[in-house]
Amino acid sequence: MRRSVITHSFVRERLGQVTCVTSVTAMRRKSFRQMSCPIARSLERVGEWWSMLIMRDALHGLRRFDEFQSNLGIAPNMLTRRLDALVEAGLLERRRYCDRPPRHEYVPTARGRDFRPVLLALLAWGNRHFAPEGASVVIVNRHTGAAVDPVLTDPATGHPIDGPDYVTAPGPGAGVRTGQRYAAAGPTGSSLRNPGSRGRKATSRRK
Amino acid sequence: MRRSVITHSFVRERLGQVTCVTSVTAMRRKSFRQMSCPIARSLERVGEWWSMLIMRDALHGLRRFDEFQSNLGIAPNMLTRRLDALVEAGLLERRRYCDRPPRHEYVPTARGRDFRPVLLALLAWGNRHFAPEGASVVIVNRHTGAAVDPVLTDPATGHPIDGPDYVTAPGPGAGVRTGQRYAAAGPTGSSLRNPGSRGRKATSRRK
Repeated sequence: MRRSVITHSFVRERLGQVTCVTSVTAMRRKSFRQMSCPIARSLERVGEWWSMLIMRDALHGLRRFDEFQSNLGIAPNMLTRRLDALVEAGLLERRRYCDRPPRHEYVPTARGRDFRPVLLALLAWGNRHFAPEGASVVIVNRHTGAAVDPVLTDPATGHPIDGPDYVTAPGPGAGVRTGQRYAAAGPTGSSLRNPGSRGRKATSRRK
Repeated sequence: MRRSVITHSFVRERLGQVTCVTSVTAMRRKSFRQMSCPIARSLERVGEWWSMLIMRDALHGLRRFDEFQSNLGIAPNMLTRRLDALVEAGLLERRRYCDRPPRHEYVPTARGRDFRPVLLALLAWGNRHFAPEGASVVIVNRHTGAAVDPVLTDPATGHPIDGPDYVTAPGPGAGVRTGQRYAAAGPTGSSLRNPGSRGRKATSRRK
């Protein structure tokens, strides 16, 4: 993903004897690719907001250009760019389904399917904070019909990782800068604990 | 979040007898605010990529403008805009820590702290797919030192929600369009199952 940053420059044009100076808003793009942080790298690959919603729709079963376009209300040239970027990043696979005329569909890859927890975490957060009229979409247990507010847990222990036992720490691929950042943040800086947590536990029943 | 889309317009200026016509790149912004989808609404509020990284740093203990700027390498005017947007969206609280000169720090609110699972899901996905040289940052169990690859689970059952028992479905606040979309997607369209899942279970030990 390359971030768009607005910069200002001045364009000078000589038109006869008059110099016309116009402020032009241009796009400078910043890449997160050089950052070692896995969050930054993930953002680099997913592209931008449209990509998130395209992945949402692809994981919801949409396949064809027209389906994405009509569901998202996205401009065709933007949709083309985002689909190309998602194919390049390995989240979607382009498959030809018609030769004449050539038509392709876009199918989530294993990496793309593995992106679902990010979208579900966003969904859950949105439902908790931005759905005053009630959630538009919910995760439900198919058997009980109960709405689910998912929690990130440690598969080894079943404990939620926002508990006191979990921290982020430099990994085997950490560079000097990451190590320094963690050293500077101190022992509490890397805690995953949410002081405002409602004490969610993976094994407790939701109220 | 408002997406930036580049459009072109032409600015005509009369300078004496000369009409200067300059192509100007302007920003048109598309808002996701009107969408009922909780993912789109979340993206609307978080703003854009920089906001994600600012929240990452704020949840990591950074508080002051200079700290964010030096860690992110972000332009000051962009940082100001993103901090303002995060305060407005209720993820950060601005607190004055010095009167002369006036200086503020930015502290995550309950809503901002609750955003952490989204970042951790992104971190885990990034580590699985974009860290060929080894993860730069990992989640670890503070007691055992074991690296954790977190899983989204149903707190009521302890089961991962990428299993066959969980689906997304229209919620109490769903509009007509959401209902139609789900009806069109059919019964499998809303499944959360990841066919490429490694059969992760909340209670199984990581390999």
